[in-house]
Amino acid sequence: MKKKKDPIPDIKTLNRILRPESVAVIGASNRKDTLGNLIFRSIIRNGYKGKVYPVSATSGTVMSVKAVKSIIDIDGTIDLAIIVVPATSVLKVARECGKKDVKGLVVISDGFKELGPEGAEMEIALRETAINYGMRILGPNCMGFINTDPDISLNASFCMALPDRGRMAFFSQSGALCVSLLKYSKNFNAGFSSILSAGNRSDIGPSDLLRYWENDDSTKVILLYLESFDNPEEFYRVAKRVSLKKPILALKGGITEAGAKAAFSHTGAMATDRAITDALFHRAGILRVESVQELFHSAMLLSGQPVPKGKRIAIITNGGGPGTIAADEAEAQGLNIEPFSKGLVERLNKKTLRPINIHNPLDLTAGTPDTEFVACARILIESPENDAVILIYVPPAGEGVSHIEAVIERLEPEAKKRGKSIIASFVGDTGLKGKRVNNDTFVPYFPFPEDAIKALANAVRYSDMISREQGVIPEFKNIDTEAGKRLINPFTVDTSNKPQWIPSDILNSLFTCYGILCAETLFANSPEETARATHKIGTPVAIKLVSSTITHKSEVGGVILDVKTEEDAIIAFNAIRGNLEKKCLSVEMRGVIVQRMITHGIELFMGVKNDKSAGHVIMFGAGGIYTELINDTVTRLLPLTDIDAEEMIGETRVKRMLTGYRGMPLMDINAIKELLLRISQMVKDIPEIIEMDINPVKVLPEGKGCLVLDARMLVE
Amino acid sequence: MKKKKDPIPDIKTLNRILRPESVAVIGASNRKDTLGNLIFRSIIRNGYKGKVYPVSATSGTVMSVKAVKSIIDIDGTIDLAIIVVPATSVLKVARECGKKDVKGLVVISDGFKELGPEGAEMEIALRETAINYGMRILGPNCMGFINTDPDISLNASFCMALPDRGRMAFFSQSGALCVSLLKYSKNFNAGFSSILSAGNRSDIGPSDLLRYWENDDSTKVILLYLESFDNPEEFYRVAKRVSLKKPILALKGGITEAGAKAAFSHTGAMATDRAITDALFHRAGILRVESVQELFHSAMLLSGQPVPKGKRIAIITNGGGPGTIAADEAEAQGLNIEPFSKGLVERLNKKTLRPINIHNPLDLTAGTPDTEFVACARILIESPENDAVILIYVPPAGEGVSHIEAVIERLEPEAKKRGKSIIASFVGDTGLKGKRVNNDTFVPYFPFPEDAIKALANAVRYSDMISREQGVIPEFKNIDTEAGKRLINPFTVDTSNKPQWIPSDILNSLFTCYGILCAETLFANSPEETARATHKIGTPVAIKLVSSTITHKSEVGGVILDVKTEEDAIIAFNAIRGNLEKKCLSVEMRGVIVQRMITHGIELFMGVKNDKSAGHVIMFGAGGIYTELINDTVTRLLPLTDIDAEEMIGETRVKRMLTGYRGMPLMDINAIKELLLRISQMVKDIPEIIEMDINPVKVLPEGKGCLVLDARMLVE
Repeated sequence: MKKKKDPIPDIKTLNRILRPESVAVIGASNRKDTLGNLIFRSIIRNGYKGKVYPVSATSGTVMSVKAVKSIIDIDGTIDLAIIVVPATSVLKVARECGKKDVKGLVVISDGFKELGPEGAEMEIALRETAINYGMRILGPNCMGFINTDPDISLNASFCMALPDRGRMAFFSQSGALCVSLLKYSKNFNAGFSSILSAGNRSDIGPSDLLRYWENDDSTKVILLYLESFDNPEEFYRVAKRVSLKKPILALKGGITEAGAKAAFSHTGAMATDRAITDALFHRAGILRVESVQELFHSAMLLSGQPVPKGKRIAIITNGGGPGTIAADEAEAQGLNIEPFSKGLVERLNKKTLRPINIHNPLDLTAGTPDTEFVACARILIESPENDAVILIYVPPAGEGVSHIEAVIERLEPEAKKRGKSIIASFVGDTGLKGKRVNNDTFVPYFPFPEDAIKALANAVRYSDMISREQGVIPEFKNIDTEAGKRLINPFTVDTSNKPQWIPSDILNSLFTCYGILCAETLFANSPEETARATHKIGTPVAIKLVSSTITHKSEVGGVILDVKTEEDAIIAFNAIRGNLEKKCLSVEMRGVIVQRMITHGIELFMGVKNDKSAGHVIMFGAGGIYTELINDTVTRLLPLTDIDAEEMIGETRVKRMLTGYRGMPLMDINAIKELLLRISQMVKDIPEIIEMDINPVKVLPEGKGCLVLDARMLVE
Repeated sequence: MKKKKDPIPDIKTLNRILRPESVAVIGASNRKDTLGNLIFRSIIRNGYKGKVYPVSATSGTVMSVKAVKSIIDIDGTIDLAIIVVPATSVLKVARECGKKDVKGLVVISDGFKELGPEGAEMEIALRETAINYGMRILGPNCMGFINTDPDISLNASFCMALPDRGRMAFFSQSGALCVSLLKYSKNFNAGFSSILSAGNRSDIGPSDLLRYWENDDSTKVILLYLESFDNPEEFYRVAKRVSLKKPILALKGGITEAGAKAAFSHTGAMATDRAITDALFHRAGILRVESVQELFHSAMLLSGQPVPKGKRIAIITNGGGPGTIAADEAEAQGLNIEPFSKGLVERLNKKTLRPINIHNPLDLTAGTPDTEFVACARILIESPENDAVILIYVPPAGEGVSHIEAVIERLEPEAKKRGKSIIASFVGDTGLKGKRVNNDTFVPYFPFPEDAIKALANAVRYSDMISREQGVIPEFKNIDTEAGKRLINPFTVDTSNKPQWIPSDILNSLFTCYGILCAETLFANSPEETARATHKIGTPVAIKLVSSTITHKSEVGGVILDVKTEEDAIIAFNAIRGNLEKKCLSVEMRGVIVQRMITHGIELFMGVKNDKSAGHVIMFGAGGIYTELINDTVTRLLPLTDIDAEEMIGETRVKRMLTGYRGMPLMDINAIKELLLRISQMVKDIPEIIEMDINPVKVLPEGKGCLVLDARMLVE
């Protein structure tokens, strides 16, 4: 493999980094608080099972271990080199590693791409060197990694502590977040299989790790912190596959490396980014979370408890307030707090000694004896009426927790047998870690019920996701791909030109090739032609500006609707011309189109965009002036399956208007679905599309189809 | 005061409960884990500065203290009695307290209103007894209270621990939440002045406590957990006044005492409740929070740091990820992360030893020495370019925190001098409590930056709130109140009838009395009359069903728009009649109205509702079929001030359509404002209005006013 880059390197090469038999720390130091000192100490202190060698240009020994000046001087093979020297020396050192036949580099040193063009050049050189010698790189500018496997026990990072061994794996674009989550995890009975910070990701990125963890039996749940997507297509393809085997949860940080400030001075960009990320995660089967704590809490739950079979939850508590808050949050998160059946109420009633109101959430009140709480919890866990049980307990005098904990331990096998999650919250108590039952199972405790519910809701989302139908990309027979391509070709071959808008007549023809219906339209370039076109189409008509530069026609007074006579058509043409003259835009007017007025139906919007990070995405939502206003747009990656199209429609608010809203007729939802899929096919055939807006497209009552009223397309 | 109830009891009477010189625990017990034991122990253990007497029917001594059988037997005066006997004995005991001239009762015992009618009766009797003897009651069914004042040091609750002394005061409708927050607070350097759980609130409720804390110097911030509003009008009047002096933060639990299950089986009810609560809190100047942690965190910040002067924040961090996440959250919360000025960048540049990108958030990266972090933090705190500084620090090796803490302590006076908040997050670290600087000031630490930002955003909301103009309720000259009342009188005097819908012709006249313009309308009851009315008004017209039972006209095919000829008007009348016949609703048709078609303008919605818990509220948002669909409605309590009306318009999304959206003309926003205020006046004059929908009302371009197209009103 040397001297040649494998396009997708064998994932086993990562073993040389994550499971090395020998490690050299290049830049190891005796000077306290330097990274070179911290890392060498981390490895020694945390009981690495292999051999570690300090390499130091200045010290003969590091932490009482004999050091060498160069890795070359080490007697024996080295699997992994951890590099902590200044950026300017990294390349030289990396070459020495190559010569020593090292298989993996962890480059902690910063001062590369993150600092600008000069650093980026150094990073490229580093990468080339590594490829030449067949070395994989983690970093540069990273925290390193930790592998808790007792056979390895390697903390190759500047985070001194080793996390507890557990079944969460964490990949982070921020080393600081690795340190933070590791620290936070110590409050819980949940640990990690491995933690990696990949810094600038010159080589190893999230896709590699997903593939590594896919078949890593010690990993049950994957956590990601991402700020950007390097190779989205590969990423979501791999993630899609892996996510069906184990849950992947991700927190997306908003700043792009390129433009930290820009991202925050421009809300619009943020919003778009949000929709695109949602689309990407949706396609990849990744569960998006909104905070660091939600990331950890949700993964913790999934690493210790089974994936719930449904969203029916039962809440049992000795405190009304926390029970109410849990129920509020459950409803907000889309979980179901279903009323107890009569039989269940009777069974519970037999166990409650004092008179209380029995309903879900079950509030046994502050005076409840532990025995009663436990008996009722058991009944709920054994009941087939729920998929998960949440125990919320407020120890009246800071005592009594141990009884409840003992019970949780006894009840857990019952829950497991039924494939149910059980979760506990000892409200306000951050000192309890969760009840470990065996190697694979523990009952997580959450200091607050809101956190417990959020985590459970994510587990339910995962359950929904893996049971979701995958759908198919249908093939439409009446599509003339070749004719369509021929129409667009002239605008894409001339690469010297900037992106070009497709004239509306050609766009109409293109739509025809794809079996997409447009409202009947004629072009006119004078008042007289406009009148003739109006006569031909039949009144009423809409008259709209044609221009290759002005794309928001209504904003310049370029749209006149509901023109009822040929005389009015002439007036309309002149009015549009006049409006442009007033704005000194006359030269931009190529003419007008005269279009049949479609007065009934509902206006919808469909859009396509070639996003720099996610590729082609499609948007769907309410149309006309409401598109931006009501912010009711669903975004998905292209191509779409039939299920995707159906889901997109279902996720909008405008859906209600299509399904017999307030006495309105049922609209042709199948036609909308088909239109989305036809557009999907078109974009697949013509990847040169940068941007397309179909707005409005009118959906007509059931069986009557959809009609495009206005569209624009930009290609390059 | 004996034997007579003071309508608003002197707030000083609460001192007899919160600051008693002597306390009797009635139901004190030696039996471990009983509430009677816990409470007596709490008082003794936590060093109450007054005298406490155990009263026990069965034990001669309680915890080595001689007990008496009845409070009557105590030799000396008793200010406060804490009652822990079974519900059935409470009344008898309370009477004895009255005879003993006790001034306050804390009734811990449950088994009252919360269990149904029988318990409710007992509760009323208890209340009457207390009024007869001039006693105030906290409870029944409550946890009791805690006063941390070192002169009192009274823990009269079954929560064993005493919280740290601090400047937060907490009133909760859930005792469990008191226990939980108290426990959680121990993780922080923030304490409470007093904590009360009021249980069933038979006497003392949140309004009393607000009035008590209003002038309590040891209370700086007020926390509320509420599930229902007992007397909303008094509550918001008091809260309004108090909130201008000290921040009030509230978490609202969703379940009403009456219908726990109903609230959760009916999403609609929840949603409405949410809007009404928002309106109530807005009027009361209360900051609504969304979780228990947000409640505590935000109050903690406000109890230790000044109210920020604005929303410009600077973030300094040694970890890129946490900085990014903080910036994301800040943007989501509406805070401004403003770019550093050139001068500021230069000043920071001089302090950073290694090359880094200097922008806000300022990421000094993991390798930054403490001295550099500190120097940069100082520059940010001294800069006039921000209103708050957030320090986010990830100790690279779990060390170094003490340096940063020392610096925080030194920098705090600088920040205070400038009226700035400083906040720190040692990410993932739940073990650090926050830096106390002096009695009044501490710098709070948050385990995660998201929490820090949320708390700060609430502090900024408070700052905005107190600086908000109060506005005035304008008086309109051209309103004929008397004529209006005369019109509605016939529908409200006959109380034997159910609520009645006001016929549209009378409603039109009422609007005229209030200077509210309606589209020109004529009533017709036959095809011929319809044609004549159409002729009179001039085409095009809208023809709409008149019925006193059918209020959603379009759903029964009762609305035909854009009728262009008299012949078409006849067809329209017959069509509406036909539609009703098909639905067997012919008898419900009283006729039609013929109305001038207003084809331009934007459709808006205004609604009024007499809410059982909040009184009259007004809703405003997008109109027509979009009202429900886009969920873009703002709700406020009536009456409105001019500022309220302005804010309501400003908070909707439809606002964008009114202010020159996509080439559309500016709409007459002043007319909308005036219409809202006229409606407000109308509801004030006619409080019998139960419900009113004005939908749609059309706003026309600037200077052209608003026109009501359709309305309905229910009175009783």
